[in-house]
Amino acid sequence: MTDQTTVVIPPFDGFTALDAIGPYEVLQRIPSIDVVFVGHQRGEVRSENGMLGIIRDASFDEVPGPDVLVFPGGFGTRVLEEDELVLDWVRQAHTTTTWTTSVCTGSLVLAAAGLLTGLTATTHWSTYADLEKFGVTPPADRVVEHLDHRLITAAGVSSGIDMALRLVELLVDRTAAEAAQLMIEYDPKPHIDSGSVAKTSDATMTRVIECASAGRH
Amino acid sequence: MTDQTTVVIPPFDGFTALDAIGPYEVLQRIPSIDVVFVGHQRGEVRSENGMLGIIRDASFDEVPGPDVLVFPGGFGTRVLEEDELVLDWVRQAHTTTTWTTSVCTGSLVLAAAGLLTGLTATTHWSTYADLEKFGVTPPADRVVEHLDHRLITAAGVSSGIDMALRLVELLVDRTAAEAAQLMIEYDPKPHIDSGSVAKTSDATMTRVIECASAGRH
Repeated sequence: MTDQTTVVIPPFDGFTALDAIGPYEVLQRIPSIDVVFVGHQRGEVRSENGMLGIIRDASFDEVPGPDVLVFPGGFGTRVLEEDELVLDWVRQAHTTTTWTTSVCTGSLVLAAAGLLTGLTATTHWSTYADLEKFGVTPPADRVVEHLDHRLITAAGVSSGIDMALRLVELLVDRTAAEAAQLMIEYDPKPHIDSGSVAKTSDATMTRVIECASAGRH
Repeated sequence: MTDQTTVVIPPFDGFTALDAIGPYEVLQRIPSIDVVFVGHQRGEVRSENGMLGIIRDASFDEVPGPDVLVFPGGFGTRVLEEDELVLDWVRQAHTTTTWTTSVCTGSLVLAAAGLLTGLTATTHWSTYADLEKFGVTPPADRVVEHLDHRLITAAGVSSGIDMALRLVELLVDRTAAEAAQLMIEYDPKPHIDSGSVAKTSDATMTRVIECASAGRH
């Protein structure tokens, strides 16, 4: 028996690095929280463009009964949405978790597993329509909570940091969340202000499309 | 010959994950930028608490003449500050870079290599005194630029994201930086406001010290 909270994060080939590492960085600052990177099997997986390899330290069945699940997004979720082994694992994990969460398109996997049916949830702004195919309506919020369903979803990529701070508050207390925020000096002051569709220009959106066409997600 | 910009990021045992992955996530979105994780030798290194392993895909001498260096921080910099092979590599890299940069305590390595002498620079708020030992004065800015010296340093952990957006503007143009910001949906709205020492409470600072005492950085 232990009082430690075990958080599992399942990166996969084609995952978005910051989706996984933002929450990791916040959560691992708290002494009562341990984070384990898991997957079908132990070993290396690669980010969307292949330029980053990270290690999964345990297979799914080596960490039974996790307390928290943080499902990251990335292009690879297109495959996972139809991977019955992953979907079964998500459903099984959700029976023991205190919180089941996602970042970015990780919510498409939760939706495919049936966890979001009838609820609101969010994803990366470019994939709202994909979420709607599961009958899930995304509001324009950065973090969407359904505390009574033990479900929290975050919008695109960096929003996982905001969600993780909220998770620390729910798992420990507000002071712990504030301590994590101070430790990672999360007092953002970007010199530009184009972080949401509502704030961006047509020229910037055109550039986003060019980057995506070149395979950069 | 290639028009690609090569960014090298050297993670090391005891690195802070988000210091490296925040800038990676921003920079790798741009088609003209490639990122390579480098080190003494190829292979796995572990974050400060050992819960995350990432892969270095090249040794220092396999990527000669990098265009950009992003040095992450972490407790492991205490060792690197006295690692002459690393310090020599930093000095050599700086002879070819367009921009030599750091996140968090990565600036202590740049300082140990002599790159910051006589300049201002920043680091994690808890290590200002360590930087001052090198004769470097940290201002209270999130990103400190010396464009004439081709040097940029970022404050603690998450500030590397802000710095990387500025780097994209310097390397490409402002529209590219805005596109990267939109792609990672960097429109932060944390539900708490304790991301700097000036904003925090005594209770939160006490909790930070407790976390650090438990080995969580």
